Amino acid sequence: MPADQLVADLTAALDAIPLIDPHSHIDPLAPVSKSLDDILGYHYYTELAHSAGMSQEPLGKDVSPRDRVRAIVGHMDRYDNTAQYRWFLDIARTFLGYDGTRITAGDADKLLDAAETTFAQPDWEKQVFAKTKLEKIFLTNEFDDPLEGFDTNVYVPCLRTDSLVFQLDRAETRERLFKATGVQLRDAGSLRKALATLFLHFTRKGAKACAISLPPDFEPAHYDDEYLYEQIRHHDCRDIGPGVFWLIAELCRDFKLPFDLMIGVNRRVYVNGVHQGQDLFDQRTSLIQYKRVFNAFPEVTFPVSVLTSAQNQELVAYSWIFPNVVPNGHWWYSNVPPYIRKDLGERLSAVPKTKLIGYYSDAYKLEFVLPKYAMYRRILATTLADDFVRPGVLSEAGAVALGTRLLRDNVRDTFKV
Amino acid sequence: MPADQLVADLTAALDAIPLIDPHSHIDPLAPVSKSLDDILGYHYYTELAHSAGMSQEPLGKDVSPRDRVRAIVGHMDRYDNTAQYRWFLDIARTFLGYDGTRITAGDADKLLDAAETTFAQPDWEKQVFAKTKLEKIFLTNEFDDPLEGFDTNVYVPCLRTDSLVFQLDRAETRERLFKATGVQLRDAGSLRKALATLFLHFTRKGAKACAISLPPDFEPAHYDDEYLYEQIRHHDCRDIGPGVFWLIAELCRDFKLPFDLMIGVNRRVYVNGVHQGQDLFDQRTSLIQYKRVFNAFPEVTFPVSVLTSAQNQELVAYSWIFPNVVPNGHWWYSNVPPYIRKDLGERLSAVPKTKLIGYYSDAYKLEFVLPKYAMYRRILATTLADDFVRPGVLSEAGAVALGTRLLRDNVRDTFKV
Amino acid sequence: MPADQLVADLTAALDAIPLIDPHSHIDPLAPVSKSLDDILGYHYYTELAHSAGMSQEPLGKDVSPRDRVRAIVGHMDRYDNTAQYRWFLDIARTFLGYDGTRITAGDADKLLDAAETTFAQPDWEKQVFAKTKLEKIFLTNEFDDPLEGFDTNVYVPCLRTDSLVFQLDRAETRERLFKATGVQLRDAGSLRKALATLFLHFTRKGAKACAISLPPDFEPAHYDDEYLYEQIRHHDCRDIGPGVFWLIAELCRDFKLPFDLMIGVNRRVYVNGVHQGQDLFDQRTSLIQYKRVFNAFPEVTFPVSVLTSAQNQELVAYSWIFPNVVPNGHWWYSNVPPYIRKDLGERLSAVPKTKLIGYYSDAYKLEFVLPKYAMYRRILATTLADDFVRPGVLSEAGAVALGTRLLRDNVRDTFKV
Ligand SMILES: [Zn+2]
Ligand SMILES: [Zn+2]
Ligand SMILES: [Zn+2]
Repeated sequence: MPADQLVADLTAALDAIPLIDPHSHIDPLAPVSKSLDDILGYHYYTELAHSAGMSQEPLGKDVSPRDRVRAIVGHMDRYDNTAQYRWFLDIARTFLGYDGTRITAGDADKLLDAAETTFAQPDWEKQVFAKTKLEKIFLTNEFDDPLEGFDTNVYVPCLRTDSLVFQLDRAETRERLFKATGVQLRDAGSLRKALATLFLHFTRKGAKACAISLPPDFEPAHYDDEYLYEQIRHHDCRDIGPGVFWLIAELCRDFKLPFDLMIGVNRRVYVNGVHQGQDLFDQRTSLIQYKRVFNAFPEVTFPVSVLTSAQNQELVAYSWIFPNVVPNGHWWYSNVPPYIRKDLGERLSAVPKTKLIGYYSDAYKLEFVLPKYAMYRRILATTLADDFVRPGVLSEAGAVALGTRLLRDNVRDTFKV
Repeated sequence: MPADQLVADLTAALDAIPLIDPHSHIDPLAPVSKSLDDILGYHYYTELAHSAGMSQEPLGKDVSPRDRVRAIVGHMDRYDNTAQYRWFLDIARTFLGYDGTRITAGDADKLLDAAETTFAQPDWEKQVFAKTKLEKIFLTNEFDDPLEGFDTNVYVPCLRTDSLVFQLDRAETRERLFKATGVQLRDAGSLRKALATLFLHFTRKGAKACAISLPPDFEPAHYDDEYLYEQIRHHDCRDIGPGVFWLIAELCRDFKLPFDLMIGVNRRVYVNGVHQGQDLFDQRTSLIQYKRVFNAFPEVTFPVSVLTSAQNQELVAYSWIFPNVVPNGHWWYSNVPPYIRKDLGERLSAVPKTKLIGYYSDAYKLEFVLPKYAMYRRILATTLADDFVRPGVLSEAGAVALGTRLLRDNVRDTFKV
Repeated sequence: MPADQLVADLTAALDAIPLIDPHSHIDPLAPVSKSLDDILGYHYYTELAHSAGMSQEPLGKDVSPRDRVRAIVGHMDRYDNTAQYRWFLDIARTFLGYDGTRITAGDADKLLDAAETTFAQPDWEKQVFAKTKLEKIFLTNEFDDPLEGFDTNVYVPCLRTDSLVFQLDRAETRERLFKATGVQLRDAGSLRKALATLFLHFTRKGAKACAISLPPDFEPAHYDDEYLYEQIRHHDCRDIGPGVFWLIAELCRDFKLPFDLMIGVNRRVYVNGVHQGQDLFDQRTSLIQYKRVFNAFPEVTFPVSVLTSAQNQELVAYSWIFPNVVPNGHWWYSNVPPYIRKDLGERLSAVPKTKLIGYYSDAYKLEFVLPKYAMYRRILATTLADDFVRPGVLSEAGAVALGTRLLRDNVRDTFKV
């Protein structure tokens, strides 16, 4: 990424575009950080510090936030080469007045104090929105979320369905479902009714998407009502995940909601890892597993995220062929510059531009939207410069228009926001 | 791809090389387009327009060519970011006198009319050959093609064997085989004889290659005559594909024909897709499946195309180790700049240069040879500049010689044309 | 790789760093070449010459070294595009006074003669160490190597365990094990004792690592003592490889040795290939197969090499999450510039810098350490320039420090040398 004038100009133009962030884990009742501990408690930092040698002791409940922050910052000189470190540096500079070039152990207290003052401002949430040029941000809501106490026009609800598909064999999940819907699971019909009740609740509250994360070996399937009856009645709802997924897809069709698929994660691979730092993957997975569902639901838009860059070519090809498959952002282990650059260039060369959802923050706290999108925009600007403007394919204005489409227009069109 | 002088010079030098295109789907009795509908009926455009939201209605048989062209061009502003759009732009500029920078709905009629006049010229085929600097082009011929009515020195026959390997269990295929050879399938011996008759016919007519496209899970196998007898006699030739492949490889050895393998396509994944826009793939495939056949036929050259860029490293390694494995072009979903650039750079770094078959057009109409090769030459020039000339490894003349080898010399040596 | 000033400066700075090469196949009793035949007998040259058309005749035992060298050099004009050719060119220039730009058949005799004189110098080994700035180099020692007759402080022993894990079902291996340890295999206990005896011998002799290469489908497993007893007593030690691996991991823990895993090779795929040029791979493999072992041995550091670049993202992610997983160099089919560049950039963006072991030579003769590391340092310098210095992330001095860490510091820390 040469720091040249063209890239600088394109980056500046893209920086001016108001953002609609189509996937995050923001708690709308506590959207911003209260302390630096909230920032550095993000799993990327606990993971990297732990990976680089930090024991899990500082992450204990009875350790003071200050000591925890000191430990995580104290290990930064072991992982200050990473993209994730740069997000933090960006936060420190943009929000906390940090003006150094490399954050080390000695900066921990100063940053803690700055964060305490900064985050305590009554209009902090508003300030973050303004500095980030953030207009709306999608949430990740459990199916029994009341969706109350916040402006759903800004914090857009999204029905997350992992527990319905993968944990309905737990009594606790079924109980939560009963409480949320008043429907007792007895057969396929009541399962449909319970799920429809959730969709009704969510769409009434302004939900604009349904979403799920999926393991690499998952394959949706249409199960007949007899089989569902048998499993619901006599087997505690075991082994019905692929069929529940299918019912949810039917409801996405009926309720006209896009169904975000995040494909490829194996949970709890590193069993003693830090919180949210235990999941990995098996690169051996294929979108061919979704062949039936893509064919069966032409009316449903499937914004698809893949965990590995090697799978990006499948995503490109499936999006090029299936009208209802849409590439969605750069997820998790692929959300670092080399993978974004590669995957973005590939998508731009072969998928209709109206189908490319550029990016989402996946953030847990609002302060992360800014540095993550800043990283993306720099790569987007570089890609537009190298692949479109310099070869004479697009003018600078044309490139900005294409970038705007990825950053904002396609989010609006796809999710109807 | 910076538009610098070195790349421009190399591109110019490569542009001057007469082409021998080692794989296409040209109909030698109707090699050029008669209307813009022939150009835009190419599956890349119907696919992308459909993927971007066009219904299949304009593709119906009773829709007028003009209306169909209007629909496909009318959707171009949704996919004018793609490499395939740029092929069309290149055709419009080179052949149809288009001088704009971005083709939109309003250009449809003008281009239609220009095409009508242009393509009606009696020497149009000759003009395309001349503008393309095309010397010879390989065909894709069904096994019962009479191979008559054209100059096989220019339109080089190639025996395509997909239906023999994958559809011999259809009565229709066996009947066609009988008609073409006069041999009734009764056992392994008559199967061999029928196939040999085809090879004799094809080689007498100047065929220079045998070819097949293969699904990702295919594995050739040597079946004994007893098994073949049993399946031919009592099971309608079912489950003998891997063995038929083996017999074809034996004939490639005996008739000294290279055997083009195009590995990785799953047919009819998107069942309601446009014509030829239904095939996708499963990235989980390996050249290890061809281990036995590569070992058993050291005398047969296997020019191998892989569908996914992730498989390119296998292709590089197998070509580096097996004398009879040769990387062949950039196929289908990998035939866009980011994949070509990556795969080409990898091949050039580790496979003997005398084994690299640079490119083929895969064209259905002759007008596409020019823009596709133009794309390839730009990438080849960029790769030679960045990986060889700038680091001081090759002089500019040396780079042109290396490029010429990929573009032309190796095609001549491999296929003996 | 533009030959610009920044890259040149960084390369020069990295060139000055003394090397500790953490993996090679050097014979410490014959570490340097005696003739050009030793250099060109390296499997990379016999493979490429054979792949490009050389028969195996010149490789026969009764062919004179001069004739063999003439044959291999005689085919160089078919593979002088490769990275491996450039290693040889670098050797010819640096060690043999060659001053041409392209080695062809006519150079064979001159180079042979130059090599004879040069390699005959009594202090040749010392000269190579000095020119290479080589401080230490790790070996690959069979388990029954006496480890005598050389300075283990310079030639660092490494216990290679392939034959223990994969060939204990051969009487010959069990006999060698008995001779080396005096322990008769009777059950799990005696197997543990035999292995422990080897670890004791190796660590007393200064071994700093244990190592193994593994096929793509391998998965380590903990076998109970009863099963091991049964297999050892009644089944000639068949089917215990995954369990022997586990016991070796236990001993790595107890003896505090890192366990180098080289994952992905299938042996003897091209059965008639040249010596050491028969092995290939199946890209379908995953680090998830090592989930149990990574979890079970948190105290053991696993420097992991993967054979294919597509697997690099798994290596990045597993190293980012597991404290005990460490990316190690660029192995075999991935040890050419395009893969190194890609894999290195990915690792630097997401794995703590203290965990990145940059490179090893894998050399069979000391003369290869220099050209291989030179290739790596050029790519490292380019990567540091493009990804860190130019975007303003690191100063030039900071980049050199990061490079030094990959080249040297992390080798020292990981292997305690
Ligand atoms: Zn998320
Ligand atoms: Zn084709
Ligand atoms: Zn090795």
